[in-house]
Amino acid sequence: MRMKNNTRWTIGVDLGGTKIDIARVDESGRVLIRRRLATRANEGPAAIEAKIIDTVRELQQQVDSLPLGLGIGVAGQIDPVGGIVRYAPNLNWRNVPLQASLGQALELPVIITNDVRAATWGEWYHGAGQGCDDLLCLFVGTGIGGGVVSGGELLTGCSNTAGELGHITVDLHGPYCHCGNRGCLEALAGGWAIARNAREAVKADPAAGALLLQKAEGNLEGVTAKIVTEAAREGDHLSLHLIDEAVVALIAGTVGLVNAFNPCRLILGGGVIEGMPELVDRIGKGVHQRALAAAGAPLQVLPSQLGNDAGVIGSAMLAMRVLTGKEIP
Amino acid sequence: MRMKNNTRWTIGVDLGGTKIDIARVDESGRVLIRRRLATRANEGPAAIEAKIIDTVRELQQQVDSLPLGLGIGVAGQIDPVGGIVRYAPNLNWRNVPLQASLGQALELPVIITNDVRAATWGEWYHGAGQGCDDLLCLFVGTGIGGGVVSGGELLTGCSNTAGELGHITVDLHGPYCHCGNRGCLEALAGGWAIARNAREAVKADPAAGALLLQKAEGNLEGVTAKIVTEAAREGDHLSLHLIDEAVVALIAGTVGLVNAFNPCRLILGGGVIEGMPELVDRIGKGVHQRALAAAGAPLQVLPSQLGNDAGVIGSAMLAMRVLTGKEIP
Repeated sequence: MRMKNNTRWTIGVDLGGTKIDIARVDESGRVLIRRRLATRANEGPAAIEAKIIDTVRELQQQVDSLPLGLGIGVAGQIDPVGGIVRYAPNLNWRNVPLQASLGQALELPVIITNDVRAATWGEWYHGAGQGCDDLLCLFVGTGIGGGVVSGGELLTGCSNTAGELGHITVDLHGPYCHCGNRGCLEALAGGWAIARNAREAVKADPAAGALLLQKAEGNLEGVTAKIVTEAAREGDHLSLHLIDEAVVALIAGTVGLVNAFNPCRLILGGGVIEGMPELVDRIGKGVHQRALAAAGAPLQVLPSQLGNDAGVIGSAMLAMRVLTGKEIP
Repeated sequence: MRMKNNTRWTIGVDLGGTKIDIARVDESGRVLIRRRLATRANEGPAAIEAKIIDTVRELQQQVDSLPLGLGIGVAGQIDPVGGIVRYAPNLNWRNVPLQASLGQALELPVIITNDVRAATWGEWYHGAGQGCDDLLCLFVGTGIGGGVVSGGELLTGCSNTAGELGHITVDLHGPYCHCGNRGCLEALAGGWAIARNAREAVKADPAAGALLLQKAEGNLEGVTAKIVTEAAREGDHLSLHLIDEAVVALIAGTVGLVNAFNPCRLILGGGVIEGMPELVDRIGKGVHQRALAAAGAPLQVLPSQLGNDAGVIGSAMLAMRVLTGKEIP
């Protein structure tokens, strides 16, 4: 007979606009099995819920014990009362009662939170933030999101949306953001902004953009932030310049965040950072040069430790903590 | 004999670079007597301490009861362990053991904090922030400072400097700030920045700047933010333009802060706001237009209720709470 200690596990789900990660996670935060599905947002909530339910059942059938529950992080604004997805722009969801749907179908307790906040929980409890009471996670992917732990509490704010760190203004005369404001950090340094800047630059100077266009198989719209970081790592001048511009914005933004929040650790993750891990040191040097001395002195700037797993680990461990009564978030 | 309830009081001190406010405050947060002194920073810490000690003794002699203690907010970075002023640029102080000096001379318990944080305590407990667990105070004076309450806790950060909201970057290509970074909110919208912009504008176009120069008695260096707000209220075109520029920066900055912190209330105070109270509505409208819908929806934008008294009331009430055991900050 297995020890009870070894049989406690939860399901973690990271539901984004393009992919769904689903994992079985043990109570030490280790991923035992993971699955990745395409989201296909156009199929609507019911189809996506069905896909998650099928996969969770499959993961359950592989072991002889039941999960304590399921934690899910969703790329959107969550109403914790009732577990409703109020608005998820990349899924095109409004007011989807996800907690109830999944809970009823799976006959499991379901804990729902925002995807970036779940990833922050993951880094805080099982990644680069362990043992730290004041930290800031900044995830630079297609968009930019974050989470803030201050005084040992993960900040939620007045309407559960604290931590929208991609939407701090860093260039009040800068380009418009998807959110309607202009000069947001995300509009200068998010993956979509890097891709937009790259396409404009390639169009303006096809000779300088030759490598980017080649990597995109001649299709301008195929130039992505991933291609830019790849070309930059190969020494492509235009791509290095595009990354430099993003780094200037990331330093400006993180300096402001460090001055405002005074974290002990700034943890950087997301696809853009993982594509160019040297950005962590560059941003760290810039922040230390430019933040207020008192805020910069204690600051460590570190890469995410959990990478793509931060979301599933964070969601699963959040469920574990809530369901074992260790903590009510 | 007076009821004990009516005799409990503390001393609140607000120590800034140009003035020192000292007040007797009762336990309901009411100012009973106040004194204002000039700081004269060039005289050094001992002279300033002596001035505070003399004034506190004078206030004590006027009543037949002793204060529970003294709370002091200092315009600088405070090390709460030992009550030391680590660095106060406007006083030109480094490592001044103010808590010990005042405590020994006055034979009173002394509670020391940052001046803006003290003002935030004041607004939170006795001003526009009463009953609110998630609020942000932004004080726009010569510089810009702030304080953040999130989840019912006043954020302190890793090294007790959280809340430096004047040093968020809002224009990454903008003018240099006193702090060494560029494009800080304070470098665009603080009183010193408004004055700098005004002097440059008057110099560049003396005809447009005629009213400003007249109000400064012909002395360009005498053009201050106060004069600009006065002239703007009289309809002076240049001054209105200068204020408009500051408002653009204040909206950009507060949009970012509202997205990052998701407060229920944004409380605006400080000399620049008090000089043009209509700025509160203008900033409020701008923030509601440009913040993320989920963060903007619950937000109230309000003027400071305590004005110049926020610092002394906050310091005094912080001392009251600590010394009566109601709360250890």
